[in-house]
Amino acid sequence: MDKPPAPSRRITIVDVAQHARVSTTAVSKVLRNAYGVSPTMQAKVRQAIAELGYRPSAAARGMRGQTYTIGVMLPDIRNPFFAEILDGLNDHLADTDYQVLLGPGCNGEEAEAKVTHAMIDRSMDGMILIAPVSSRAHLEHVARTVPTVVVGRHGRSATYDTVADDDFAGAGLVVDHLADLGHRRIAHIEHHETDPDRLAEMPNAIRADGYQHAMRARGLAGEIDIASTSYTQEGGYLGAQQLLARPVRPTAIFAGADIVAMGALDAIAEAGLRVPEDISVAAYDNTTFAAFRPISLTSVDQAGHQIGRNAARLLLDRIADRQRPATQIKLSPTLVTRRTTAPPPA
Amino acid sequence: MDKPPAPSRRITIVDVAQHARVSTTAVSKVLRNAYGVSPTMQAKVRQAIAELGYRPSAAARGMRGQTYTIGVMLPDIRNPFFAEILDGLNDHLADTDYQVLLGPGCNGEEAEAKVTHAMIDRSMDGMILIAPVSSRAHLEHVARTVPTVVVGRHGRSATYDTVADDDFAGAGLVVDHLADLGHRRIAHIEHHETDPDRLAEMPNAIRADGYQHAMRARGLAGEIDIASTSYTQEGGYLGAQQLLARPVRPTAIFAGADIVAMGALDAIAEAGLRVPEDISVAAYDNTTFAAFRPISLTSVDQAGHQIGRNAARLLLDRIADRQRPATQIKLSPTLVTRRTTAPPPA
Repeated sequence: MDKPPAPSRRITIVDVAQHARVSTTAVSKVLRNAYGVSPTMQAKVRQAIAELGYRPSAAARGMRGQTYTIGVMLPDIRNPFFAEILDGLNDHLADTDYQVLLGPGCNGEEAEAKVTHAMIDRSMDGMILIAPVSSRAHLEHVARTVPTVVVGRHGRSATYDTVADDDFAGAGLVVDHLADLGHRRIAHIEHHETDPDRLAEMPNAIRADGYQHAMRARGLAGEIDIASTSYTQEGGYLGAQQLLARPVRPTAIFAGADIVAMGALDAIAEAGLRVPEDISVAAYDNTTFAAFRPISLTSVDQAGHQIGRNAARLLLDRIADRQRPATQIKLSPTLVTRRTTAPPPA
Repeated sequence: MDKPPAPSRRITIVDVAQHARVSTTAVSKVLRNAYGVSPTMQAKVRQAIAELGYRPSAAARGMRGQTYTIGVMLPDIRNPFFAEILDGLNDHLADTDYQVLLGPGCNGEEAEAKVTHAMIDRSMDGMILIAPVSSRAHLEHVARTVPTVVVGRHGRSATYDTVADDDFAGAGLVVDHLADLGHRRIAHIEHHETDPDRLAEMPNAIRADGYQHAMRARGLAGEIDIASTSYTQEGGYLGAQQLLARPVRPTAIFAGADIVAMGALDAIAEAGLRVPEDISVAAYDNTTFAAFRPISLTSVDQAGHQIGRNAARLLLDRIADRQRPATQIKLSPTLVTRRTTAPPPA
């Protein structure tokens, strides 16, 4: 290896490449954890980075304009599902020099515009937008400015990649499970939606659609009953309160997300009812909360970790090649049955 | 009001001030939601901002170098207590043009260095570091570079402000409550710590210290029993497993944080024990999880929301005046008793 350059100037990727006697492309591949880098190459480049004290996040500003920061916008920091996605993201990014910065978008177009503008202004190398509610036009504006992956939201765009699970099928798994247990009065708590684009693309809208479709397929069209609130703990609480106040109350509630089930279970406990003896509850996301034994919540597993890994991989690929065609990844959900679902009361 | 300047150049704070016929200081005060701004002044400046289409986050790069972004580093996105602090932060920032970006520090010095460097490189106007584990030297380095508020960690520094609760007193509240119920074998699950600086400053260490002090004060020195894991759900799970395997098991567990209690309750359920009939559990943070009725967890309320508001206020003050003396705010905790604590089994 060559001797380190004089310390007075900033170390660049070119110095690292020369020092390791490899190409700058190889260094770049190691930095973004790309496919097809041999362990030997990894070791050589890592050693050169260590010996030179190369700090990509600062140094790269002078080289290709990269900042090695990735902006992740998420709707709600309280929803434990997003932590699963972040774990998957971070797993893929762990061996790279990328740093993730999060911006809560708070489920509103104005807040999302503020977050995405801040991330663009702060020169993020790429953005991952989790279940954004913004217009297609805004998402494409962001994606034309910065490489972007949209997570959770369906719909094809030529400018950004998407990773989503099959929410329609997932909702069907819940209805089938509850109907198989003997339930007929299966209600759903959805995240309220009226915008036509979002009705076609948002996971919450597609789950609500999948619920209705599955109910009809099971001959339960007359039992369709939706409480329209939000994918928050409070939304679940208020939604369940509405459903429990029906003249004939449902024997099962399909909450659109685990955090919604948390609120629903709260309202059910407050009403003095038992789960699953008086009422069954199933949800979506299979977070750590669902696996928590004192609750033990039946929930659809949409593999949040895998969603996060896929999103990180697509984003790094796109940062490396902004011209490649947009990719859509759709994952198949599975149902994890636990103690909150049982046959209806006799 | 004057007519808007020609649209070809970037709108600045000076344009807003001229348009509203107020001083630039007044505009700056409105932008950072400072004390002592009259509603009339607010309205005038807001109107000028709207009429000119002024966008501080982008425009300010040319003015005083401000970016209107605040970096918040937090140890763990899964811990619901940090969402309380963020709610308080965002409440204070809601009427300003500041945007918060979060960086998970993952409870490690190396990860924290990466996050803080990324935030400095991205030109954040200020940083809020929640329960950082980094050395005092690193914290002061950050604070000399960017206005900084440290939350949760005790210890006085001339370069940064701090907001913390009285963790020593809070731990005492738990021990007193359990001892008053008749418990003697009160065990504690702590976040493991060996570094001398952190033993003196970190909230987890001070809670463990407060626990031991209160046990001695109640004549229970011989009953002191600590499982040393981490402030995570898994830490609570493993800690409770250790404690339940003791030859004589404790009748009460004081978990150092609500998320720790979540893991402890999981292990207790797995062991087939009932809470509070077989064993009482109390925790710290009084998050939404503690208030969740199916659990109804006794927990110390350290007013996370108020901590967040105070941190935001101190930070904006310091951004406005970097020379003002460092401020330490310490809040007094209270205990919220719920259903997980009861007298020990006979």
